[in-house]
Order: sequence, then structure tokens, then C-alpha cells
Amino acid sequence: MALVVMKFGGTSVGDAERMRTVADYIGRTVRRGNQVVVAVSAMGKETDDLLHLATQVSVSRPGREMDMLITAGERKAMALLCMALHDAGVPSESFTGSQAGIITDTDHTRAKILDVRGDRLREALAQGKVPVVGGAQGVSTGRDVTFLGRGGTDTTAVALARALDADSCEIYTDVSGVFTADPRIVPEARRLKRLNFEEMLEMCTAGCPKPAMRSVEFARNHHVRLHVRSAFTWEPGTWIEEEDPELEQAMISAVTSDSSEAKVTVAGVPDHPGVAARLFRALADHSINVDMIEQNVSLQGTTDISFTVPHEDLATAEEVSSSLMGAIEATEVLADPDIATVSIIGAGMKTHPGISATMFETLAAEGINIEMISTSSIRLTCVVRADVVDKAVVALHRAFNLENE
Amino acid sequence: MALVVMKFGGTSVGDAERMRTVADYIGRTVRRGNQVVVAVSAMGKETDDLLHLATQVSVSRPGREMDMLITAGERKAMALLCMALHDAGVPSESFTGSQAGIITDTDHTRAKILDVRGDRLREALAQGKVPVVGGAQGVSTGRDVTFLGRGGTDTTAVALARALDADSCEIYTDVSGVFTADPRIVPEARRLKRLNFEEMLEMCTAGCPKPAMRSVEFARNHHVRLHVRSAFTWEPGTWIEEEDPELEQAMISAVTSDSSEAKVTVAGVPDHPGVAARLFRALADHSINVDMIEQNVSLQGTTDISFTVPHEDLATAEEVSSSLMGAIEATEVLADPDIATVSIIGAGMKTHPGISATMFETLAAEGINIEMISTSSIRLTCVVRADVVDKAVVALHRAFNLENE
Repeated sequence: MALVVMKFGGTSVGDAERMRTVADYIGRTVRRGNQVVVAVSAMGKETDDLLHLATQVSVSRPGREMDMLITAGERKAMALLCMALHDAGVPSESFTGSQAGIITDTDHTRAKILDVRGDRLREALAQGKVPVVGGAQGVSTGRDVTFLGRGGTDTTAVALARALDADSCEIYTDVSGVFTADPRIVPEARRLKRLNFEEMLEMCTAGCPKPAMRSVEFARNHHVRLHVRSAFTWEPGTWIEEEDPELEQAMISAVTSDSSEAKVTVAGVPDHPGVAARLFRALADHSINVDMIEQNVSLQGTTDISFTVPHEDLATAEEVSSSLMGAIEATEVLADPDIATVSIIGAGMKTHPGISATMFETLAAEGINIEMISTSSIRLTCVVRADVVDKAVVALHRAFNLENE
Repeated sequence: MALVVMKFGGTSVGDAERMRTVADYIGRTVRRGNQVVVAVSAMGKETDDLLHLATQVSVSRPGREMDMLITAGERKAMALLCMALHDAGVPSESFTGSQAGIITDTDHTRAKILDVRGDRLREALAQGKVPVVGGAQGVSTGRDVTFLGRGGTDTTAVALARALDADSCEIYTDVSGVFTADPRIVPEARRLKRLNFEEMLEMCTAGCPKPAMRSVEFARNHHVRLHVRSAFTWEPGTWIEEEDPELEQAMISAVTSDSSEAKVTVAGVPDHPGVAARLFRALADHSINVDMIEQNVSLQGTTDISFTVPHEDLATAEEVSSSLMGAIEATEVLADPDIATVSIIGAGMKTHPGISATMFETLAAEGINIEMISTSSIRLTCVVRADVVDKAVVALHRAFNLENE
């Protein structure tokens, strides 16, 4: 008998019919002799609706109360799912994060899990029941209700799998797994049977939307195998697990792209120590999330510093940089919203030389200019013009032969 | 410094602007040097919406999960109200029924309060904060979330007032108090300055919609003064408190009417012992709420038994009665949906003879036939045709001179 933690996202339980479909599926899994624990998100767009309501009522929106408000969404979903399970003849009980013993720190709106007690979940399992836990929520050491942040239900599922020593953690979502590229861009994109945690983490950074990065980190750190799969087709999806040293790694596993960032260039800065420190401290003080940074010294002893930020931070980043122009003796600040990144990811990259050359040659052959480059040991990212990024993804997918297993 | 418990109903916090208006009012009360504890209902029609959602998802709707679902409504409202209070510069903290230490029995969907610990509320008050408690909810002795039922926020407010030894319990609602009659029926109806608990309870039974009867019983049993008043005009409303033996009681305080019931007559039953027992046991077994019962023996040795039930139970009541016709040797079962009740209520009725004569004469003068009569020590109720009940209310209001204080 296996113990499986199943996570269902907002789309998977988006309406009454979806609730019943999910309940039916859980029932089938239980009748095959498995123990099931469920972590469920708020229905459909409910979290957005609650956030909108809060902005209508309040300007200040204190974190403690935001968490109390937002967690109402998962509370509704878990109660409704238990009702549907009851109709399907599956004994179940819903539990808030607090009732499930998910203890967090006091950092409201993005609390971190400190411990999962899970006594009531074990009791429910022992009674043959399916415990259904509200996702993305816990109770703080200060006894307040906390929200783990967007995507927090994935984290709840992984934490439950770890605390209950589950055999696997299944992340049911609206896609059927992790693909070699976005199938909307590359129709030949192939679903991956498996990926290791590092590859998945790099893909999260580089624009792959599922699952939530924090939950993958949590799973890696606690050795919980993830199975990302569809709550619509129910077919087997992609396993994310530890690297098996016995297996040969795929050289390149996937190509991803991301159009959510913009570029700022601070030009003509004298090449003195402390200039970059001053600039990025000021940006940090304005809570701007800087992603890539590149600095090139010219022969004239001045340098251009380029960095990328989320689109929504571009105006502030430009303002902060401009206000420092005098202090750091920059000649110009350029804001460029029309960029995108394209990345190749693969654990085998470490042991295969020449990958970067192939990437650059492929882009060159398409006439695509590379504006910035960033690397990790298993990822290579290029900044290109936004309007050619899809072409870049298609060309790289073909160049690395990703359509064939 | 007074400690005031304020209850706000769904209409009072029905939208973002109402939330801010209520927060502003609480702020003014605090700045005048009072301590305030709030009990708040779900916004507007949210409880109905949640019930509707449940019927869409599930046929069985187990009580434990219904309570988890429904209490999400108050949770949202209390968090939003605290945000609005924060904007208004009033320190506050929201508490679920469980966090407030409201301990109930395990009777889901209509749990009863067993104890109110209130430690966290006292802590919050000591820190100069306004505790905002989700209405109509608690945690059961079995550690599950419980719902106190419709109108349960009134009960929450009274229980908090009692546990915290508050100076008063203010029930803010969409009407400005309790009236001598429904002002839609009797334009001259007058708001009552005070009523005693027994009068209020009889009015609740006889069709006055506010406040919830259970909370009035709770307040009477625990000696908590209630002040029913408007969250729209904020003017002083009606005090409901213990009878002051020093004060002379008004002979009649109010006239009410109720069109929510229907009548069933089981005719021609032999006048034997056990017939009524058999009939009403069968009705009770079908969970039918019988209100008034009347039985008259005729000279022929047979009897007609008439009783009233809520409209929604009429079909079942008729069916149950008809199925017993053979067994109890009845000649006929008549279902009559077109009735209404009109009642006069007053603590002074006990010491004033002739009240019933005045009532019957008044109805006779209007040509209104009385079909059934029911009495308590401070209430007199007549069943009349539904289409003349408003005329009856107007005539009785005038006959007992209720428009003048």
C-alpha cells in the first residue's frame, strides 16, 4: 500500500464539475489500495478575487489580515472537495493548515514552513479517511493564520509528503508534465519522462511556469520525488527526482524563454571600484528584483552596466538609476522593455563541451543578435530582442535534437 | 471607560464602502474612550452564495464540511474589516471563533456555545486593540470548526459580551430598532425605546425578524443588555433588558404578523385518547415543525384537529396526515396555505384584563374572522385569512393606541 500526496491547483478544482471529477479520481486511487492525502488550492481565480476585494476595502492591507482573508479561498475549496468525496463514497476530512499542524514563521503573506506535526492527518489516515488540507497556509509560532504565498500549495504538498514519509508527491495541474519547450512555440516539443531537481530549478528560473520553484527547492532539500501531471487527461507526467549517477544525463533537456523582464543600461560609468555596489544597493533599497547583470569595460576606461528587472519594476529601476547619474558619473541611462531571454537547460551540459558554441552558432545562423549572456553549470541564457525569441526557441530545439528522445 | 461589544450584520458590511463606514464608526467610539469588541457576519448574501455552491458540488453535504465552508464567509469579512480599521488608524486584530476560544458542542450546522475562553481577546484589548471576531463560529470539543447557524453572529456577540463582562451588547443592523409594528404595514408605527426579554422573545416567535431569537434567549439567561440599532443612521435604537419591577409595563408593546405558515386540518376524528399523540408523533418523525395546535370536540363525539406548519413543510404534513387517515379514522384532511397570524405582545397584558376582548372586538369590527387562537402570558395570536392580515395589524395598532407613547 502506497501513501500518495496529491496536489490539485485552482484550475483543477475550478468549478463544481471539476470538484466531482477530482473526487472520482481520488476515489479510484483509494480503491486500488492506496492511502491518499490531498493539498488543494483555492478554486479558479478566487485568490485574485480576494486580493481585488482587499484593494477595494483598504489601502494599508496589513499582512496578518491579508493572510486571514486569502486563506478563506483554500478553506472553501477543501470543504467542497470533501463534500464531493463524501458523495463519491470516499470518507474524508478537511483540515486547515493550522489543524494539519503546519507551523510557519511569522512572515505574513509569504510565511515559511518550520515544522509539520500532522497528528490529525495520521489519525484520519488510520481511520481510513482521506485528509484534505488547505494549501498554502499554516499557523505561525505567534498563533496567527499565515499564507505561504502564491504557488504555496505545491510547498504544502511537498511538506506533507515529507512529514508523512509519502511514497510520492503528485502535482496535478492543467498541463500534462514538463516539456522540452513550450508546445505553443514548438509544436514538436516532447514531454519529459524525468528531470532532476537542478534542471527543474533552472527551468523555473528561466521561465517554465510549473511547478512553483520554492516547492521544487523544498522537495530537493527533503528528498521528495515529485510527479508533475495533468488533472484533465490523468496520464502519467514528468517525474522530478534526484539525479541518478548511474544514468547518463541528457545533454540538453529543454529550451525555455521568458518575456517578463526588461533591460536597463547605465552607460559611460568610470571604471572605479564601488560604482556597481552603489547602484545595486540603491536598487535593492527600492526592493527591485535584479536578475541578470553584465558589465563590460571599454578601452576608454569607462564601462556600461546592464541589468534585467521584471517589467513592473522597470520605471522605478530607471528612476533610481537616473537619480544616481551624477553621483556615479554615468553619461546615460537606457530603459529597454523589448527584450526576452532564451535558455537551454541540461544536467549533461557539465560534461559536454561545445554546448555554448552550438547555441551561439544556432542563433547567429538565424540572424539573432545576443545582447547579454548568463550561465550556470547546467543552464545557458541569452538576452535577445523580444520579437525573435520564439524563432530562437524553435531553432535551438531543433539544433539540440530535442524532438527525439 | 466602557467595554462595548458591537455586532455588525451582513448588510452593514455588504460592500467595501460599508466596511469603511463601519470602521470609521468604530474608530469614533474608540476615540471617545471606549473599548470595543466586534462580532461580524459574512458580507451581504455571501452565506447564501456558499450554500448554493455546496448544492452545486454535492448532494450529501456533510455537516463538518458545510461548517468549514460557511465559516469562510465570516473569515473574509473580519479580515477586511480589520484592514479598513487599520486604514482608519484603529489598531485591531481578527480572530476566528476558534482563536477567540469559543468552544461549542459537536452539533454541526447549528452548534451550541459551551464556553468562551477569550484569552486572546483580553490580550488584544490590553494592547489597545479592537478584537474583531468572526460571527456564528466556534471550535468543537472534537477540535472541528463549527457553525452556530443562521443568525449566529448575534449569539456570538452576546456570548462575547457575557464572557468579557461588557457594559452593553449593540446589535447593529439595517433597521433602527424594534417597532410597535412593521412600518411598511403601519406608517405610524413607533420605535420602542425599551422592551424586556420576554416581550422580545414573543415578538421573535410572532414574526419580528430582528434580532435572532436564540441570541435574545442567551442574553436573557446571561443578563446581557442588548441595544438593537441601525448601522446606517447610527441613531440610538431599542434597548432589550430585564424587566424593571419598579416601572409600569406598557399594556401592549407591539403588533406583529407572520405569513410564513400554513394550516392543516384533520377533520372528523373520533374523540379517543391517543389520536393526537399518534398524529403529532408521525409529524415529528418527519421533522415537521408544528407551531399552533387547536382541537375542538363537537357534540357528535368527533373532533377537528388544526395545526400550523411552515409553508415549506405543508406538502409533507398533508401527506403524513393523509396516510394516517385510516388509522385514526379521520374523514378529511384539508391543507390551507392562505392563512397568516396576527399577534399582540405586551408584558402589561398579565395585569390588564380585557385585552383579548378588545382584540377580538377590533377584528370583528373589521369583519375579520378568527380561525385559531393561541396565547401565552404576554402574547395573543389569531390565525386569519392571509389577505386581511395587514388590515388586522393596522386596526389593532390603532385600537391599542400604539402610535402614542
